Amino acid sequence: MEKKVAVLPGDGIGPEVTEAAVKVLEVIARRFSHTFHVEYGVIGGVAIDKHQNPLPDETVALCEASDAVLLGAVGGPKWDQNPSALRPEKGLLAIRKHFDLFANLRPVKAVPSLLHASPLKEEVAKDVDMMIVRELTGGLYFGEPSRRTADAAVDSLVYTREEIERIVVKAFEIARLRRGKVASVDKANVLETSKLWREVVEEKKKAYPDIEVEHMLVDSTAMKLITNPAAFDVVVTENMFGDILSDEASVITGSLGVLPSASIRSDGFGLYEPVHGSAPEIAGLGLANPAAAILSVAMMLKYSFNLDTEASAIEEAVNTVFEDGFFTADLVEPGKRVLSTKEWTDKVIDEL
Amino acid sequence: MEKKVAVLPGDGIGPEVTEAAVKVLEVIARRFSHTFHVEYGVIGGVAIDKHQNPLPDETVALCEASDAVLLGAVGGPKWDQNPSALRPEKGLLAIRKHFDLFANLRPVKAVPSLLHASPLKEEVAKDVDMMIVRELTGGLYFGEPSRRTADAAVDSLVYTREEIERIVVKAFEIARLRRGKVASVDKANVLETSKLWREVVEEKKKAYPDIEVEHMLVDSTAMKLITNPAAFDVVVTENMFGDILSDEASVITGSLGVLPSASIRSDGFGLYEPVHGSAPEIAGLGLANPAAAILSVAMMLKYSFNLDTEASAIEEAVNTVFEDGFFTADLVEPGKRVLSTKEWTDKVIDEL
Ligand SMILES: CC(C)[C@H](C(=O)O)[C@@H](O)C(=O)O
Ligand SMILES: CC(C)[C@H](C(=O)O)[C@@H](O)C(=O)O
Repeated sequence: MEKKVAVLPGDGIGPEVTEAAVKVLEVIARRFSHTFHVEYGVIGGVAIDKHQNPLPDETVALCEASDAVLLGAVGGPKWDQNPSALRPEKGLLAIRKHFDLFANLRPVKAVPSLLHASPLKEEVAKDVDMMIVRELTGGLYFGEPSRRTADAAVDSLVYTREEIERIVVKAFEIARLRRGKVASVDKANVLETSKLWREVVEEKKKAYPDIEVEHMLVDSTAMKLITNPAAFDVVVTENMFGDILSDEASVITGSLGVLPSASIRSDGFGLYEPVHGSAPEIAGLGLANPAAAILSVAMMLKYSFNLDTEASAIEEAVNTVFEDGFFTADLVEPGKRVLSTKEWTDKVIDEL
Repeated sequence: MEKKVAVLPGDGIGPEVTEAAVKVLEVIARRFSHTFHVEYGVIGGVAIDKHQNPLPDETVALCEASDAVLLGAVGGPKWDQNPSALRPEKGLLAIRKHFDLFANLRPVKAVPSLLHASPLKEEVAKDVDMMIVRELTGGLYFGEPSRRTADAAVDSLVYTREEIERIVVKAFEIARLRRGKVASVDKANVLETSKLWREVVEEKKKAYPDIEVEHMLVDSTAMKLITNPAAFDVVVTENMFGDILSDEASVITGSLGVLPSASIRSDGFGLYEPVHGSAPEIAGLGLANPAAAILSVAMMLKYSFNLDTEASAIEEAVNTVFEDGFFTADLVEPGKRVLSTKEWTDKVIDEL
């Protein structure tokens, strides 16, 4: 297989972790005889510094000419006081919208050797294995009108039936490859958009009699993610609910630093990025945990290139390194040896 | 002091727990020589059954003639398929709006003797002591337009400067009586309403130089409520963010069943209710935990009647009963004796 991959390292620890991830991608290419053409572009703060634009045209063109995008992280204190159009996260919102990346996939799975870092009791967190499917290009974060005067402001939560249909169908398809359960999360006791959402789920589920569907309210879901997170398989929800719930879910297993994400559209094109941020305080020190970026490459292989075997090979290698007790600074237990970004990546490469 | 209290028992376990709470109120009246005139009204499912209206005019009139309202719980499977206007929770939304109860106060405090029931590790949960201040009559749950057609739907997140000002000032005032810290939660990197919110907080904080103010994004807050909940003192936020975050926070200490809430307006009038729901599955069995309803009476004494000593007396009595190892079915540890609603209430009354 021959594919083009655009790499957008971004800010903070973004360059370090994407460098590690690209190394792993190259090892996969050699071992499984594929060719990945990697080209680099700018996004976020570095793009603002260079082009006064968090998503420059050059970067859009590069991604359009590619089969998938690997992103590091964006943002940092340097740009925090910028006006809204010149903020790093605008680059992220713009690339999602431009490429119609409507489905954000956020897996959360307990890793036995990381449970010590979980704020939850081990028996509550240990069987967690869920996939949050967040609608990413509609809803409250993109609806119009969104504007303000000196004395009032409005944002709009807008959904069309089609927008809901495609994300719900995506969730059902994913559930089929997992444990066959979907929790659809809304606030149907208050919101009109949620009533439409619930109606679409009821219609679409007819074509998936093998899938068990449950409707949940967003407030009860926020509780159950803590009291019984292992009960969830696939969770599908609106953009803003998904933003909050997926971040909530990301900390329950103690493995926030190792969580990948995918933002995809219907034809397989997708953007892959770690859930963690740009961590400016440790940028450039070689301390960053590259696991999330490496696992984002695994998601790319699986969801954009249909290379399931290759994706599993990476996941297994990462797990083995954790099980063997090798950790970067963020996860290490007191008294144990801390590996640098490069040393930890080399362990994964050795496993491969 | 002489006050009129409207009691709206509502559905499910509502009648049992409000009965217990009224008993405690009567004990306080005798011990501290006050007179509380208690009158009963209907709301929610029982009101739909009797008047085809989840908030009948009689109930509104009763509350208007009262100094405070004690509510049990609303809802149950019987009304789940009703059209939107005939759903029990419409009664709740309507009473909040009618009486302009813009400030929802949701305390969450770790109780040492209940930590065993927490999903969090004891060291993470043990120092939790926060007050979530949720804006309750504006934002996404009340904004217009809110409507749908067959193929699209819209809800609106609308705030005026005044609406934000009064809730923010309320949060600062509450923080002054606590540890002097306010976390203001928004999504200012995306929403226009959040930018206005942040601006108002910046303005209002000038009058409170003694208060330490931090702006946080709603997604990071959802994480920190799990990873470091003890760091929060007062949290103030928009209606929908507050709905999600306050429910999330309610489960971290294992004491969901004992959490009270207050929904107040500027002049001291307020509605007090347990955070827990109507629990139809145990209704009428005498098993319900009345602690949340009893502590809601304590909040009433404090926030509507300025009777701080009386409020503290109730809180101390409840804590002592827990420390002495007396629990209702929801909280008891395996092998220990389960107290009924009435037995547990009597223990509190004995303490008083
Ligand atoms: C940076 C921000 C706009 C973004 C979002 O809320 O979508 C981020 O929080 C995320 O979840 O990817
Ligand atoms: C019943 C529902 C409308 C209500 C709300 O979301 O406001 C409830 O969840 C609450 O938090 O009091």
